[in-house]
Amino acid sequence: MHQVDFINGKTRVFGIVGDPIEQVRSPEMMTWEFHQRPYNAVMIPIHIAQSDFDHVIPDIMQIRNLDGLIFTIPFKVKALGLAKTLGQQASLVGAINAIKRQSNGDWCGEIFDGLGCVEAFKRRGIALTNKRIQLIGLGGAGSAICVAVAHEHPSLMRLFDLNERRAEQMMQLVKQISPQTVVEMGPPRCDGIDVLMNASPVGMLSDARLPLAVDAFKKDLVVFDAIVMPEITPLLKLAQDCGCEGVKGREMMLGQISKLVDYFLAP
Amino acid sequence: MHQVDFINGKTRVFGIVGDPIEQVRSPEMMTWEFHQRPYNAVMIPIHIAQSDFDHVIPDIMQIRNLDGLIFTIPFKVKALGLAKTLGQQASLVGAINAIKRQSNGDWCGEIFDGLGCVEAFKRRGIALTNKRIQLIGLGGAGSAICVAVAHEHPSLMRLFDLNERRAEQMMQLVKQISPQTVVEMGPPRCDGIDVLMNASPVGMLSDARLPLAVDAFKKDLVVFDAIVMPEITPLLKLAQDCGCEGVKGREMMLGQISKLVDYFLAP
Repeated sequence: MHQVDFINGKTRVFGIVGDPIEQVRSPEMMTWEFHQRPYNAVMIPIHIAQSDFDHVIPDIMQIRNLDGLIFTIPFKVKALGLAKTLGQQASLVGAINAIKRQSNGDWCGEIFDGLGCVEAFKRRGIALTNKRIQLIGLGGAGSAICVAVAHEHPSLMRLFDLNERRAEQMMQLVKQISPQTVVEMGPPRCDGIDVLMNASPVGMLSDARLPLAVDAFKKDLVVFDAIVMPEITPLLKLAQDCGCEGVKGREMMLGQISKLVDYFLAP
Repeated sequence: MHQVDFINGKTRVFGIVGDPIEQVRSPEMMTWEFHQRPYNAVMIPIHIAQSDFDHVIPDIMQIRNLDGLIFTIPFKVKALGLAKTLGQQASLVGAINAIKRQSNGDWCGEIFDGLGCVEAFKRRGIALTNKRIQLIGLGGAGSAICVAVAHEHPSLMRLFDLNERRAEQMMQLVKQISPQTVVEMGPPRCDGIDVLMNASPVGMLSDARLPLAVDAFKKDLVVFDAIVMPEITPLLKLAQDCGCEGVKGREMMLGQISKLVDYFLAP
């Protein structure tokens, strides 16, 4: 039989939309996760020029066997307008990175950066409940992480962003989500905390900086970095050197893949 | 590594468009053929409602990493309007079943039913050049087969269709393509011919009829049936019983898959 066994007329289609697109990892990782369930679906790369987004994407959403889309650079902000309703995380964060067709035909948007981060900690067996957490960076991924972590009800959340107004807004949001959590803002520190989380771009690619002024960590600190490239950032290297447990951006990405497939396949 | 090895950010996307879509075989067969080359591409099923076709397909054609589409029921006629230019076969037949993006960005249409049929004969090592051929049925597939076979310059082509005007048109077309071929029309017969070709729907699914009145074939007659289901039609069964070589619709489909990938991957 001259045929492959992973795609046929019954295959459900999902896509990741971006410009450029060649660097994305979701097609191979999401498709792997679909097949693990097992579910007859693939995720394809969808390369859309920025000037085409507004008229092309609504028509792609008319394809009857296309059930969901993920959005990456530069479409995360524009994607928000495609969702008729928002999921729990997205309505708090005010941003989405995925949409799915619901059983009533409406498209719902949700954001998974934060859920992926919390999932990564769960897979390590590390509870965030009642922990003291320092979070650095409250941009796209950082604010989603802030909201998802707040839902775990830590005892303390210290927030830092270069944009103070942003930090204030997120502080109010954490108080609303988890009234029992003590929320502070200010320059990042690693004393008096259990978990240090970096969601800022400091340390990305060839950036050798640390996202906070520090020489060493106490051994029982858990250090997380949302950055995927490099896999071991300067922050995670220091954590390694100090004997700390480090949670990598790649683990957050894997957690996000799993949560995305849960979401896409839920009724 | 939690990932599959057949799809990634660099994968080129092709689609087959139809309504319904679940029965199509192109996704697994075309994707297999891409991988044989080897070429990083998949063919996905694209289910479009008939009322959505006119506005959705032009936008799908804006996806930068989507390079070609195949059209099946009920879109073969509508698809013609999407092609800015036509390939050699399509311009003669006046119909297409596939479009591809050319290097200049324009979309070109072509039809592959006939080319697939000729390819099936080539794979059997049977030349059609200088052969005497009876062709029954000049509808969508039949007229494409008629044009492709005429390009092989048979010595005789006898054409039959219930629509006599259609048969007359195709007779003129064969004369134009291959001036040295004797062309006749009239009720189908199997005397004085080397190859009998059925491109009519007679014998499809549970239809037990033969497409011409006959009890037996001479042993050296080659019998072809374009019907895919059943694999052995009443016509091919009679050919088997008479010791004739039979060429199946499935072979034409495989030939078409191969020709389609040649076309899609040509510069």
